Amino acid sequence: MDEALERFLPNAETCPEVLAEAMRYSVLAGGKRFRPVLTLMTADAIDEAQDTASSRASIMPVACAIEFIHTYSLVHDDLPAMDDDTLRRGRATTHMAYGEGLAILAGDGLLTQAFHLLTNELVNADRSMVNRQLKTIRIIAEAAGAVGMVGGQAIDLEASSITPQSTDSIPLDSKQLRGMHARKTGALIRAAAVAGSTMAGATDSLTNIVDQYATHLGLAFQIVDDILDVEGAVEALGKTVGKDASAGKTTYPSLYGVAESRRLANESVERAHEVLRNADLKGYLPDIASWVVTRSN
Amino acid sequence: MDEALERFLPNAETCPEVLAEAMRYSVLAGGKRFRPVLTLMTADAIDEAQDTASSRASIMPVACAIEFIHTYSLVHDDLPAMDDDTLRRGRATTHMAYGEGLAILAGDGLLTQAFHLLTNELVNADRSMVNRQLKTIRIIAEAAGAVGMVGGQAIDLEASSITPQSTDSIPLDSKQLRGMHARKTGALIRAAAVAGSTMAGATDSLTNIVDQYATHLGLAFQIVDDILDVEGAVEALGKTVGKDASAGKTTYPSLYGVAESRRLANESVERAHEVLRNADLKGYLPDIASWVVTRSN
Repeated sequence: MDEALERFLPNAETCPEVLAEAMRYSVLAGGKRFRPVLTLMTADAIDEAQDTASSRASIMPVACAIEFIHTYSLVHDDLPAMDDDTLRRGRATTHMAYGEGLAILAGDGLLTQAFHLLTNELVNADRSMVNRQLKTIRIIAEAAGAVGMVGGQAIDLEASSITPQSTDSIPLDSKQLRGMHARKTGALIRAAAVAGSTMAGATDSLTNIVDQYATHLGLAFQIVDDILDVEGAVEALGKTVGKDASAGKTTYPSLYGVAESRRLANESVERAHEVLRNADLKGYLPDIASWVVTRSN
Repeated sequence: MDEALERFLPNAETCPEVLAEAMRYSVLAGGKRFRPVLTLMTADAIDEAQDTASSRASIMPVACAIEFIHTYSLVHDDLPAMDDDTLRRGRATTHMAYGEGLAILAGDGLLTQAFHLLTNELVNADRSMVNRQLKTIRIIAEAAGAVGMVGGQAIDLEASSITPQSTDSIPLDSKQLRGMHARKTGALIRAAAVAGSTMAGATDSLTNIVDQYATHLGLAFQIVDDILDVEGAVEALGKTVGKDASAGKTTYPSLYGVAESRRLANESVERAHEVLRNADLKGYLPDIASWVVTRSN
């Protein structure tokens, strides 16, 4: 993954050096690569189910585009005007290392580069591949945008009330919390899987199965994220812990307690497994589901 | 234009209200709409030259996507960590009205929405239209990204030295100034024209002509922008004037003086006219070139 991510960053010969550096710094910080791996493994599982052989060369740019979008969202979320974080993936956040202005631009550059990558010209692309590409761009843009990830971040920001109008933190109820997470983290995780499925040429009904699987997966992933913010170790996580509680944010543990949160995460992963079993979808997708609730970072 | 821009903003029923508001506020502030009009008029000129009739319904989303990208760049440029502007298009900048966090998100949302719009499903799109769309996305992503607009902004930021490392302003020489502007404003202006040409199905040689025209146009546009920052009236411009000089920024007037800058702008527009004449490209493209040096805002 890291080799591909590096290769797909903007050309350092044509991009201003300090910007290229800030973008590299943000991307090549050793993240989990959960989303791009999900894209690749979904395409593989579809190939196995449909007895097709989609080319890794056509899926990899899509996987990397998803990771660029995820990384840009972290860089912007960490800014002082948002979550104001100083530590990410075990080192200084981009704005701590390069200043706020350049961090904003590095994020903007990564988001734009993602869409550039999604138009990667495929050698001998036939009509169906071009259609798949266009469909994939649409899915990702919708998930990453104002009705998806950016929208979730706006809800989070409003609830944390870092606005000129108010300074009080507003607690969310369980439905609002779930809705916020469905946008903020769920939408891109779903898009990662659905993009892999679409690029591999899955039937609409198989892509629908993949979407259901990824929806359960995304919820479990977020609940575990909330739990790790309470119970995790800074060393393993590479980011500040206890941040949500000290910011007065509503989380799964703050609403349900840690034990019930863990039960909800396990339940969600069990549903993901069930969806796969019913559709006879395999590959590494069950392993990814199991990893989501056992991970320590 | 404004009616179309409003229609293509994210659905207010599915997008969090405060984010939808901040995005609308940023876009519907009565800009000049120079770039999207250039996209539409280029497509019309190509139709006239090739005796084709491309559908306005397929060009309009592209024109609006360009304006969304231009608007997002203004919203992010105005942030305190960048140019720190309080007035834009005659009213409070987005971060003054909605706070910094939401301004960052409104910009992110507009950039992402632009790419969503560029995948607009065309009714009865044949293979050639789908190819044109994908090509257009690639052109725009390259122009707006780290090797283009975002890169130009990074050079500007570095020259203004709002970085943790230094606080001194670094003067640019004429070549560096031209290079910075070619990215910061030139790239998207070229993409606006080239996208119109591509969507209208122009031959490669006609699109090359359009690109040359827009390159001269973009340079003239930027020189005039610099002159207006010295000579313009706040009422006409709707933004703070004298900003470049007080920030110690290198501009065309600071390097060449106002009279020579005006001569350079006129020369560049004359070249744009010449390119059109030689290729017998007409429509409103000559009028747009003439407007660029006579405009007062």
